[in-house]
Amino acid sequence: MKTISIESLTRIVEQILVKCGVSEEDSRITAEVLVTTDSWGVLTHGTKSLPGYVRRLQGGGLKVKGKPFAEREGPGWAIVDGDSSLGMVTGVFAMNLAMAKAKTNGIALVTVRNSCHFGPAGYYTYWAAIHGMIGMAMSNDCPSVAAPGSRGPVLGSNPFSFAAPAGNGSHVVLDISTAVVAGGKVRQTLAEGKAIPPGWLIDEEGMPTTDGNAYPHHGSLLPMAGHKGYGIALMIEIFSALLSGSLVRDKVGGWMFGDTAAATDHGHAFFAIDPSVFAGADVFATRMNDLVQGIKASPPARGVDSVLVPGDIERKKRSEAEKNGISLPDDIWEGLKTAAASVSMTLDDV
Amino acid sequence: MKTISIESLTRIVEQILVKCGVSEEDSRITAEVLVTTDSWGVLTHGTKSLPGYVRRLQGGGLKVKGKPFAEREGPGWAIVDGDSSLGMVTGVFAMNLAMAKAKTNGIALVTVRNSCHFGPAGYYTYWAAIHGMIGMAMSNDCPSVAAPGSRGPVLGSNPFSFAAPAGNGSHVVLDISTAVVAGGKVRQTLAEGKAIPPGWLIDEEGMPTTDGNAYPHHGSLLPMAGHKGYGIALMIEIFSALLSGSLVRDKVGGWMFGDTAAATDHGHAFFAIDPSVFAGADVFATRMNDLVQGIKASPPARGVDSVLVPGDIERKKRSEAEKNGISLPDDIWEGLKTAAASVSMTLDDV
Repeated sequence: MKTISIESLTRIVEQILVKCGVSEEDSRITAEVLVTTDSWGVLTHGTKSLPGYVRRLQGGGLKVKGKPFAEREGPGWAIVDGDSSLGMVTGVFAMNLAMAKAKTNGIALVTVRNSCHFGPAGYYTYWAAIHGMIGMAMSNDCPSVAAPGSRGPVLGSNPFSFAAPAGNGSHVVLDISTAVVAGGKVRQTLAEGKAIPPGWLIDEEGMPTTDGNAYPHHGSLLPMAGHKGYGIALMIEIFSALLSGSLVRDKVGGWMFGDTAAATDHGHAFFAIDPSVFAGADVFATRMNDLVQGIKASPPARGVDSVLVPGDIERKKRSEAEKNGISLPDDIWEGLKTAAASVSMTLDDV
Repeated sequence: MKTISIESLTRIVEQILVKCGVSEEDSRITAEVLVTTDSWGVLTHGTKSLPGYVRRLQGGGLKVKGKPFAEREGPGWAIVDGDSSLGMVTGVFAMNLAMAKAKTNGIALVTVRNSCHFGPAGYYTYWAAIHGMIGMAMSNDCPSVAAPGSRGPVLGSNPFSFAAPAGNGSHVVLDISTAVVAGGKVRQTLAEGKAIPPGWLIDEEGMPTTDGNAYPHHGSLLPMAGHKGYGIALMIEIFSALLSGSLVRDKVGGWMFGDTAAATDHGHAFFAIDPSVFAGADVFATRMNDLVQGIKASPPARGVDSVLVPGDIERKKRSEAEKNGISLPDDIWEGLKTAAASVSMTLDDV
């Protein structure tokens, strides 16, 4: 375990990316996305992914000088070409564009092609929420999740996020995968020597299994809530890839293990809605505050302290991280050291 | 069991509503929504609800001459006041408005207040899809579903639907409740003398129970996929009620058992996206066809014929109903007879 301040970790990520040839501005944005995510305790989607991104920057599949741009657009919509730049850079660019359009138009949808793994869906909607907007963000990915009745994977774990400002500088942030459980959770459960619960996996014949070793080469994850999660993942594929013209399903490149010289061509979709257009910012904030406080005041189940809303846990972890730093597991810290070494940097003094 | 043609059932619903004082046009729209839903085999959200709507029309909580209107609007958005008219009338009005705006704006969001139960979320997105649009529809409702860690119900079963045109006159339609299972399914399982599976219900202390009699007065449904479904239901509450200014959570009136003289003030939200603005209608249709055919060609699990996409089952049932009529269970047919009798009609000759 390595404990490190938010500022130091941010500086490390920035410096590694700058040494890869990424601009200072894009390095700053990417560091902000990944380290904020770590500070929320969402360690699966933060700096853990940096070594993979660095390999792709070095391999050429991610362009170090890539510049996302609006290929076509109208007052309430755009198709962004990510130009194979870092997915976090493209994600923030696209959400900013959606937010600017929503300000005058009430709502905007920006779909994205020619992107890569964008890390945490929840960062982009959080970004919208702290600017007073409601956001939705989603992405496709290579298939790892079965459809009901399929033998193998049919869709990616297609993440979905929603956030809304909740008054008093607070916000609600939901960030979920549409798989019943993340692939990383299967590996972690196996590594801890625990049993895989029924309902997570199917085997090569499409039959339920609790053999964690089947995943990912001889088995698939199940969708959350069966046909419901499958349907939502399909919706995400349509918004992210079919409106934008990115690659679809098994054509999407593997960002972690695939050829580092090839673009993955992920698709995303970003919705921004300006509540001040619909309800007035103050009225909406009051309604949100009433909703959230009303839910939190609901009687808790026996043994439970209080009912939470999405984002509460992450906000608490953030405030702990601001005081005590972020505690990175050894594998993440080692990954960062390796990424640093690949650009002739050392983290020994941090 | 009563077997009846789509045309006859449509005429019955129309006539009952006209006799209640509803205009011919609004009666026709409502009959079309409810009977289409029955013809899909979704008997929980079709004409089964008509007796409840009729009681509210007679009680005054639903206005027989109500006329939904856009209270405020812009090129890409509107807030519709349903004027306490039938939820189906308001739903079709609002989705039509969203579709008209999306045609020039790419995307539009229409939120609705002062509505009632709108029946099947899937009808409105299907309506968008058969007109070449992508649709999302959602609604809030009185709480029946717990949050993770709550003792009682916190949110409604807040339904969600998505649909998209899929080329060749085909379409994908997803229509789900965000509860793990519909309340009606609990009652049906009990009535059949079967055991309630773990994971459906909690008791009065918020603890898991398999006692189906606990619901709804001494227990709550659980959300689909735990915190994920809870988060999506919360998003639906925000889009439907907080943007529109309808009633929220436990303030929403009960449409089935509540005071028939009082407006329920449900909120809804309708998104329309025009794929021809983003991708061109033909390009999008080709991409959709490739996606759907690709998924259907996926190897099925052992014992399964083929992988389906959302809406396949309903389309098959529709085509059977067009040939052989709709088979209504006795309780639905009796309900229709009672509703007819309340406006001095008899269904004996149908």
